Amino acid sequence: MNTIHHRIGALTESTEPVYEALTTIDGLANWWTVDTTGDASIGGKIEFRFPPGGFDMEVVELEPGAFVRWRVVDGPPEWIGTHIEFRLSRSDGYTIVNFAHTGWAEPVEFLSHCSTKWATYLLSLKQYAETGTGSPSPDDVQISDWD
Amino acid sequence: MNTIHHRIGALTESTEPVYEALTTIDGLANWWTVDTTGDASIGGKIEFRFPPGGFDMEVVELEPGAFVRWRVVDGPPEWIGTHIEFRLSRSDGYTIVNFAHTGWAEPVEFLSHCSTKWATYLLSLKQYAETGTGSPSPDDVQISDWD
Repeated sequence: MNTIHHRIGALTESTEPVYEALTTIDGLANWWTVDTTGDASIGGKIEFRFPPGGFDMEVVELEPGAFVRWRVVDGPPEWIGTHIEFRLSRSDGYTIVNFAHTGWAEPVEFLSHCSTKWATYLLSLKQYAETGTGSPSPDDVQISDWD
Repeated sequence: MNTIHHRIGALTESTEPVYEALTTIDGLANWWTVDTTGDASIGGKIEFRFPPGGFDMEVVELEPGAFVRWRVVDGPPEWIGTHIEFRLSRSDGYTIVNFAHTGWAEPVEFLSHCSTKWATYLLSLKQYAETGTGSPSPDDVQISDWD
């Protein structure tokens, strides 16, 4: 199994703004994709849509201010059954997000693409938590021919 | 062993500007760190320095226009002995860079940090190849308390 890892830090007074951005439909729509709908509570399903397609996530774990875990229930075949997690902590005035997208069967080129895209979205999350304005799709960073 | 993967595409007419940016001291100084010195030919050693420290790489493989591989010979303990590779190809008008930083012994938090930083530097490489201006250290993207 292969994993995408990232770590960013947002200059916020507590983990709350970041946790809110990960656990409410409005928050998610402000940094990942404006077309976010569904139910962000445990057991709920969130639908994320982008111009080329999208992902459906089941919310499998929530620990207030500290941890979020989703399971991918629909989307590209390489994503289905993988898990996405955000672990929050505090360090030196920053809210640290340790991110992992686990369970990729193979280290395909699409994993590499998604790894770079995740970095751009996590920097959008940082920007949103710090300033109230992120860069969600369709105004996200274009990184290649794969968007 | 754990690997960082990324994929970006630069809108260039051939792989040459990207290959040049990866295999000359001047090219490297324009997207990774301005403080780049050494010998970028096969068997040579390149010294990359940043405000908090740096890395020494031995150039172990060069395939013109197509492939670059370095071995880390000095730097943070987690990096020593790891390999960094850039595989170039063409797709739909883009020069694609498939990047891998292989051989991490453990998926430590520092790997997650470096994964996100690599994404920002690879986007600097893309910008440099496309426009002639990148964002090398010390004008790189700050992502957290770890710089």
